[in-house]
Parts: sequence; C-alpha cells; structure tokens
Amino acid sequence: MLIVQKFGGTSVGNPDRIKNVARRVLETQRAGNQVIVAVSAMAGVTDGLIKLAREVSAAPSEREMDVLLATGEQTTIALTAMAIQELGGKAASVTGAQAGIATDGVHARARITTIEPALVQRLLDEGNIVIVAGFQGISEDGLITTLGRGGTDLTAIAMAAAVKADLCQIYTDVDGVFTCDPRVVPTAYKLDEIAYDEMLEMASSGSKVMQSRSVEFAKKFGVVFEVRSSFNNNPGTTVKGETKNMESVVIRGVSIERNQAKIALDHVPDTPGSAAKIFQAMGDANVNLDMIVQTESSADTADIDFTLSAADLAKAESALRAVLDEMPGMQMKVYGGMAKVSAVGIGMRSHAGVASTMVRALADAGVNIDMISTSEIKIAVAIDDSDVEVAARAVHDAFCLEGSPDLS
Amino acid sequence: MLIVQKFGGTSVGNPDRIKNVARRVLETQRAGNQVIVAVSAMAGVTDGLIKLAREVSAAPSEREMDVLLATGEQTTIALTAMAIQELGGKAASVTGAQAGIATDGVHARARITTIEPALVQRLLDEGNIVIVAGFQGISEDGLITTLGRGGTDLTAIAMAAAVKADLCQIYTDVDGVFTCDPRVVPTAYKLDEIAYDEMLEMASSGSKVMQSRSVEFAKKFGVVFEVRSSFNNNPGTTVKGETKNMESVVIRGVSIERNQAKIALDHVPDTPGSAAKIFQAMGDANVNLDMIVQTESSADTADIDFTLSAADLAKAESALRAVLDEMPGMQMKVYGGMAKVSAVGIGMRSHAGVASTMVRALADAGVNIDMISTSEIKIAVAIDDSDVEVAARAVHDAFCLEGSPDLS
Repeated sequence: MLIVQKFGGTSVGNPDRIKNVARRVLETQRAGNQVIVAVSAMAGVTDGLIKLAREVSAAPSEREMDVLLATGEQTTIALTAMAIQELGGKAASVTGAQAGIATDGVHARARITTIEPALVQRLLDEGNIVIVAGFQGISEDGLITTLGRGGTDLTAIAMAAAVKADLCQIYTDVDGVFTCDPRVVPTAYKLDEIAYDEMLEMASSGSKVMQSRSVEFAKKFGVVFEVRSSFNNNPGTTVKGETKNMESVVIRGVSIERNQAKIALDHVPDTPGSAAKIFQAMGDANVNLDMIVQTESSADTADIDFTLSAADLAKAESALRAVLDEMPGMQMKVYGGMAKVSAVGIGMRSHAGVASTMVRALADAGVNIDMISTSEIKIAVAIDDSDVEVAARAVHDAFCLEGSPDLS
Repeated sequence: MLIVQKFGGTSVGNPDRIKNVARRVLETQRAGNQVIVAVSAMAGVTDGLIKLAREVSAAPSEREMDVLLATGEQTTIALTAMAIQELGGKAASVTGAQAGIATDGVHARARITTIEPALVQRLLDEGNIVIVAGFQGISEDGLITTLGRGGTDLTAIAMAAAVKADLCQIYTDVDGVFTCDPRVVPTAYKLDEIAYDEMLEMASSGSKVMQSRSVEFAKKFGVVFEVRSSFNNNPGTTVKGETKNMESVVIRGVSIERNQAKIALDHVPDTPGSAAKIFQAMGDANVNLDMIVQTESSADTADIDFTLSAADLAKAESALRAVLDEMPGMQMKVYGGMAKVSAVGIGMRSHAGVASTMVRALADAGVNIDMISTSEIKIAVAIDDSDVEVAARAVHDAFCLEGSPDLS
C-alpha cells in the first residue's frame, strides 16, 4: 500500500518524539508499504520565529514571514529523515516546493492549486520514506508560501490525493473523533467512521480535531483518511464519503461550543437597508456571526438576534453603537456566558422528528433553549453555558449514543 | 551601479546587527544603486542546528544536514528583508535555489555549476533590494546543497559574476587585507589593492580573510571585489587581476602560519616506491602536507622532511609508524612548536634577489631557517615558533613594508 502519515507539532516536539515518529514510520514501511510523511514545525518553533521577526519589524510582511516560518518545517523534515536513517531506514526529505506543492500567491494563507509530485514519486521508487514539509508550498512566481492554520493536515491530504495513496493517516493527540467530548459526556465513544459532511459540521461547531478546509479538500478529491493518536496504536476514526449504511444512524455525534455570546437587536426598522447595515458593520469589524434569527416585532420593525464568539463581543458591541446612532428606535441587548450544543448526522435527512426529539430531551432535562437553528444535517441550540453538560448528555442519550457499540 | 554586498554570521548575529545591515544596505540603494545582499546564518545558529542533529543521529547524512543547515541562512534572509522593509525600503528574499544557484550533487561541499538569476533580476527590476541566502544551492536533482566553508563569500562572488555586478563588497570583521598581522608587526598596514594570486598565496599561508576557493572563483570570472569592515565606513582592500603597476611593489605582504610541525624522515630507501608509500600513507590518513624537501643522504637513501599542521601531527606519526616497519633503515624525527613565515608578491617575478634579501634579513635578525620553499610569487620559511615575531618584522622591514603609504 501507499500510505501518507501526518504528524503535528506536538508529535515532533523534541528529538525524542521525532525518534518515536521515526520508529512508527519505519514500522509502517517494513510492514510492506510505501510511506510519505508530512510533518509540522516542532512545537514552539513557530512562536520563536514570530518573536524573532517582531524584534526586527513591528509589522513583518507576510511574504517574508512565509520565508521565515517555512524554516520550521524544513528543520523537522531533516531531523525526521536523519532519525529514520539512524534506525537503518532509507529516508529523504523534501520541502513543500520540492514536493511540487503549487499554491496561489496569497502569503500566510495560500491555497493549493496543483501538486506535481515527480520528485516525491522518484524518491519513493528508490525505496525512501519521503518526508514532506507540511504547511508550505511555492507560488507560480516561485515564492515560498504557507497554507495557514491546519496547513500540515492539508499537505497530507493533498499529497494523498496527488499520489493516489491507499491510506492517509492524520496522527494527532486524540484517539479519533468522538460522539461528544468525553470530558462532558462520560458515555461518549470514539466513532469508527464519519462522513465528510458530518465531520465538517462537527468541526464548525466546536469539535476541533481538524480545520474544515482540510476536510473540504478531502471531500472534494475523495481522500479517505483516518484520524488517530500518535501516542498509542488504537485504530482511529475513518473519515470518508457517505455510505448507505451511515444513514441508519440518525445522529453521528453531539458537538459543544463554549464561550459564546448573543446580541439581541430589538425594533430594527423593517426596511431593506437596515439589516444590511448591521451585517456590514459586523463584517467591517471582522466579527463572524453564527446563528442568526430574525423575527417581526411589529408592523414596521423586526428583532434580529445572533450568536458570536464571546471573544468578539466587545468589538461587535462598539461597532453596533455606531449603527444605533443612526437608528434611534433600535435597542441592543448583550448576553455573555452562552454556549452552543449541536446534533450532527447525515441520517437526519431521512429520519423525521429529529428536531422534536432534541427539543423534548432538552425540555425534559430542564434546559432552556435560547435560539435554535437547523441545517440539512445539523440542529444547533444556543443555551446558557451553565446548562452545557446537562444538555449535551440529554441530547447524546436521546439519540441512543450512550454506551459504545465498539468498545472492543 | 549594481552592487553585491556580503555579510557574514557575526555581522547578522542578532536582531540589532541585522538592523544595522539593513541601514547600510538601504543607504547603498538610496545612493542610486541596485543592491543584492548575500547573508550567512546568524552566528551560533549553525552550531545549534548541528547539535540538534546529533540528538537524533550519531552520524547524520550529509544530504539531510544540508536541508537542516540551509534553514539558517533562510532565517537570516527573511529577517534582513523585514528589517529593510521596516525602514521603509523595498526588499525581497530568495533562497539559494530561488536565486538559481545550481551546484553539483556533492552534499556539504557542493561546487557551483551555473547561476540562472532570472528571479533575482526580476526582483531587482521591481526596485527590490534582493537578499540571497548564502552558502546554499540546488543540485541538478532538485536537492538542497550547501557549499561548505566560506560558502557565503562564494555566493556573493558567483552572484556578482552572474549578474555582471559593477562592484562586490565582502563585509567582514577586519578592515581589509593587511601587509601582515598587525598584532605581530605593529607597522603593518591595510593594502589598497592586491592581485588574486597574491590573495591566494596569502590565504593559503595563514592570512585567513577568505577561503581560497572564493578568490579562485573571482579570479576565474574576473570579479573585482572589496574586502571591508561591517563595523565602520573605512575603504577596504580591492582584490583584482594583476596590473602593470602592481609589479613595482616587490612584496605585497608577509603572512604567518603558527601551530606548525615538522616530520623528518632520514635514510628513506632511494627506490621509486618508497616516497610514494610515505605520501600515500599521509593521504590515507587525511593529513595535508605543506612544505616538502627531499635531499640525498647517501648513495642509496634520501632524507624527506615536510611540515604539516600541528593538529595533524599525532595521526601522521601513527600512520608513518606502519611505514617504518616496512623500511627498517628509515628513521623518523618529529618536531612540534614550529611556524611558517611567507613573503608574497607578484613583483618578485620581475625582481631578482628576493630570496637572498629575505634570507639575509632573517640571518641578521638571528632567526634560524629550518626549511625554505619557493613558488613563483611566494617564499616561505619554516622556523621555530618562538622566532615568529622577530622574523615577520625583519621580513616586513626588509621589503620596505614598514610605515603605511596610504594612511590618509
């Protein structure tokens, strides 16, 4: 088999951990596989480089930050290759550019455009374990670019797509994707498999195993990947396209997002430009809105409520003060200390009554629902943060997620 | 003018020094020039990377060491570009590969084969100061290579040749090339100019301002360069091809090499294979011989004396013990505590009596000459290390080098 394995900054955080990665990778090869490894910068290295940059420039250019930060992964690839060679294995390292990872020219958050893995393929054919620097690529102009957050996951998945790998393994510090956060819901268990869309909804609602963009990329190119732990040998969670079988499970999991806030705007003039002005102000202030509910409050005014990250609350509030000055009748109320609980599953498309089951479960548990929003495969509720544990357990239980079917 | 400037590891040793380099480079550009800058890794960084490598592997492969060490210069180019941008300048950094520095595939000591400076030229044309990572290139196979000791000097000179620069300045921690080491000969002074061949002889006999290979490269491609200090604005020494005028000076300078040793082999059988066996043994032990004198000691034996670095004495001695076993009549004597003083100048080719002047000056100063060797433009003597200062001053004086003709 041709296998791509990804190890993040914690997994390669020091020379000893790099040696552990080397052992694991070499075992994979010696089991009869060809192996490509994507690695991140050692934990802490990127922060050190950013600090160094700040010592020469208050606002370093993104182009040069990319050149600087790319050295972090380049250091790791060389050390990883050396560690494999020290164990008697054959390894060769390549930078993003050498791996043929072409990107657009948007520094600090470049998008992969194409991959030409000729050198990687040649090194593989020569019997090497090929170590690819994650997080980086090269623009059409020949400049070094970086891919932004979650970049090494993206490198691994894109490389798996380009070389048509049989398997792509994302090694991380958790055992896989769980039905819910086990610290909140003790009966939560690791999923054997999950559909791309479910993974995306889980990611966007708080289960931050991976950045959405990598999952989206995998979905687009049909790359099946496994999320698993670099600290043990347990099987992880396979992320793949929908199968008929998956739909028999109504809800795949329950995700939790804490540190939420709500802004309620009452008596917003019911004219076409008013809502636009509010959302424009939020966009200009770089505030991401999450759940949005608009209701008619009178014949000519509406109430607009939305949730947002508590971290953005202050800047959202100050941006809205300016809007308030222009709309005298409008009132703003601000609520902190909120949370969001979401039930996710592609099965809900073919199962009626999911919303009512969820709402009833929460009511029975005494949880007050502040807002509710639904998508095709997700139902989310905004609640008081103090209700999070009770709510998550109630929803988890309501969809028969209690108890692991695969504890074996 | 198009100017290439080189700054070594000490000159870019910390963020403050990088800012100083940025100021100097920007001044050069603002005076109406196009500027390319070649920089080394910050002092200490390369050693830190080597230490890291040793933590994962007892004997890291040279291929991967090159990938690792190349991050040192890549860090400096980004920081230098940022520092220039912070001062309001326009700058862009490029790695060796991006600068089009093609090398052979000999890792750790690659030779430059060609330079394709298309990207450098484009960035220059866009008004950038272009910061090139010294010491590194890319092999025909697309692998990262490093150029070995003095690599950044070589990068600067090769780049100057490739872009047909009007001027190449090697910034270092000395003011230029001196007639002799001023710590030994207080009347020594900085030379305004020196011929490539003189510089080469000075370099190979102890005046380690630059590695010979960079000077050889400059000579081959006719790159005129200036060695000058990065800590002041004094003019340095221009290194260039011979001019008619240069020959009027008999001796350009006196170089000193301490920590030398001598091995005297007496009664070596005067057969064709004997000397070969001795030199073969030295080559196998990786010992560089310097001055070699062979004389007939009897009808059928010869005496062979040679000097070598004191650091190599022990391994040379042990290698020769094995040869002694095969040649029973031969005797070996070992002398430590020696030094070498050389007079260098292309003028000696057209001036008779240089050797006799030097020998008489040493005799008058009471210095015993142990060995003497001559090349077309150099006369070297091996002496006792305790005589170095007296000898250097005597030779310096004998050729009227005392007192600077250009102290202005």
